[in-house]
Amino acid sequence: MSHYLYLDSVPSKLSEQIAPFYVMDVLERAKALESEGHSVVHFEVGEPDLPTHEIICEEAVRALRAGDTKYTHSLGTPELRETIAYDYALEYGVTVPPENIVVTMGSSPALFLAILSLIEPGEEVLITNPHYSCYPQIISIAGGVPRPVPIYEEEGYQLDVGRIKRAIDTRTRAILVNSPSNPTGVVLESAVMKELSGLGLTVISDEIYSGIVYEGESHTFLEYGDGAFIVSGFSKLYSMTGWRLGYFIVPPGYVRSVQKLQQNLFISPNSFIQRAGVAAIRKAKPAAREMVRVFGERRKLMLSGLRGLGFEIKSNPKGAFYVFVNAAHLGSDSLKLCFDILEKAHVAVTPGIDFGSEGEGYLRFSYATSSETILEGMRRLGEYIARK
Amino acid sequence: MSHYLYLDSVPSKLSEQIAPFYVMDVLERAKALESEGHSVVHFEVGEPDLPTHEIICEEAVRALRAGDTKYTHSLGTPELRETIAYDYALEYGVTVPPENIVVTMGSSPALFLAILSLIEPGEEVLITNPHYSCYPQIISIAGGVPRPVPIYEEEGYQLDVGRIKRAIDTRTRAILVNSPSNPTGVVLESAVMKELSGLGLTVISDEIYSGIVYEGESHTFLEYGDGAFIVSGFSKLYSMTGWRLGYFIVPPGYVRSVQKLQQNLFISPNSFIQRAGVAAIRKAKPAAREMVRVFGERRKLMLSGLRGLGFEIKSNPKGAFYVFVNAAHLGSDSLKLCFDILEKAHVAVTPGIDFGSEGEGYLRFSYATSSETILEGMRRLGEYIARK
Repeated sequence: MSHYLYLDSVPSKLSEQIAPFYVMDVLERAKALESEGHSVVHFEVGEPDLPTHEIICEEAVRALRAGDTKYTHSLGTPELRETIAYDYALEYGVTVPPENIVVTMGSSPALFLAILSLIEPGEEVLITNPHYSCYPQIISIAGGVPRPVPIYEEEGYQLDVGRIKRAIDTRTRAILVNSPSNPTGVVLESAVMKELSGLGLTVISDEIYSGIVYEGESHTFLEYGDGAFIVSGFSKLYSMTGWRLGYFIVPPGYVRSVQKLQQNLFISPNSFIQRAGVAAIRKAKPAAREMVRVFGERRKLMLSGLRGLGFEIKSNPKGAFYVFVNAAHLGSDSLKLCFDILEKAHVAVTPGIDFGSEGEGYLRFSYATSSETILEGMRRLGEYIARK
Repeated sequence: MSHYLYLDSVPSKLSEQIAPFYVMDVLERAKALESEGHSVVHFEVGEPDLPTHEIICEEAVRALRAGDTKYTHSLGTPELRETIAYDYALEYGVTVPPENIVVTMGSSPALFLAILSLIEPGEEVLITNPHYSCYPQIISIAGGVPRPVPIYEEEGYQLDVGRIKRAIDTRTRAILVNSPSNPTGVVLESAVMKELSGLGLTVISDEIYSGIVYEGESHTFLEYGDGAFIVSGFSKLYSMTGWRLGYFIVPPGYVRSVQKLQQNLFISPNSFIQRAGVAAIRKAKPAAREMVRVFGERRKLMLSGLRGLGFEIKSNPKGAFYVFVNAAHLGSDSLKLCFDILEKAHVAVTPGIDFGSEGEGYLRFSYATSSETILEGMRRLGEYIARK
């Protein structure tokens, strides 16, 4: 018998009001189909299909066997923070003081801590629409107000700085950008980044897909000043999603505040995983570059496959591992369309509505899967469309 | 040149207002002494000295080598959640539905998510004073208001339910308790737990030291109903601090809200570490019990050592691995006293003020260290006191 029957035992409004990920319902149905014996093609996944490289795993094994199982410095081990700084010098030619680098358990908590250390309750953070699904919630939980500004396929999903400027009001404190981007695959142009850095807003730059670029170059906001929060991690480029290892680079003056938040909420990041992170940067770069090369081939396959099926893709996605396509000719309700494709073609994709209102009518295809799977998925989709 | 010179680039008030841990300053000075070649006795540590047992590490190694490096279910792997449920049945004879168990990266984020899913902004959470250092901050970051209620050494640090009742007002939503407790080592009496469960407040029970008890028995609030949030983890009993593996058990009706929070803020807990957690419960219990036996001996040594030095300990701490002693006869400012002891005796302890205003004048000694270290520390303290 519960002692709490007379309590209004309801979850907090904040947690109740969070929108679910619709793709989770799609996934659940996909699993049900699979348990009935059907094969399902998965284009909805947001993680590389390859396992983490041996060289990284074996470093974790060595650390574990050496007894490296204790709390570390709350901001992360000096060794990993120095290695990350070295990586930025090598990849982007920027100098990052290791003491401004904060290691976290994935890039999501890094983003949360960045906003928490920056925003007063009620202040606005500009985001694009469409955007990575979690941004509005992370901002809200940290006490801020997400303010979406549309981006358009016709403009190659680049941010229009004029549109950003017009969205700024007295409550706007920051802009959260994501390049290379989930779900659009856009890579922000250097000129746009430079302009955004000069707007008087704090830039929070989610660079978790950095290094995964197929056309042109990826940049970090650090190239345009030291006032931005740079959020990144090991999940995507090193295929370490399940490890939960991220970090962020903090503008001068924020380290102490961020450290207090980290100490209280997380104590420290994982010890031996940080050693594996050092190995990733120092030793697994060639493997990471090879993965990006393979993804580049899959991307071509996915783009030509989708175009062959009549999808209009106005500009090629240049980074990450997603194609965000207009599917309104098949159905204007993206969730309904996803369920229909899943039931009839046994292909799982992510509904555009998960990425904001401007994503409605679109579907996100991930090509972080084998070429064979991509071809089979295209074949099934072709049959689905033919029968439509 | 920074582009942000004209911004009032100051951290958020919330993050600025968080009190630092004073013990960190003590530790910094201790490290400086050590780098000058001095040996320092560490009684300030909050983690078992033993490395994680081989049986747990090797399961992580197997999981890593099997490629278990991907995102898991956001609430944790079914296998680990079932194993935790099995553990509660075995240890406490309570039935926990695995679907109400949420795996997290350490118990701190579990506590944060519990409060976040429960509290409306401005609602109060009762805590004891003294209390675990991070509680007020975790509550505040989640939008709640920490409301300390004193507990007294004279009462063996048990909660006085009458005093709790008088502290309840219309804004009070929950009470956060910690048994076995850091810093006092108190283990709540069954009768007190039962009474607390019937107050009409939601109990959030931090049971991270459960199983580490030397006198009497430890209980879980689950024995008194299913309306409590139970927060626990693997850090202490299994000496897995650096792994960051925790969990919480959620009252019926909160799972969905908690899941949405977890998905947005953390995605999922670490994959291969969850497999190690299964091994901990299934295979490392004997090692854990042996650790508690060893800690029991160290506790006796620490208690008799401190009493021999003239410290009055009114009732023995019965769990965790701390002795919280009144040191007002040596100095009423606990931080100042800590620095004095460190400088003159090269012994590091935690100042009571880190645990709330009622902790002032006290020192926390951890006996999660070797018997030799305890004896050496007592010898140095004896000399310090003699010279005083």
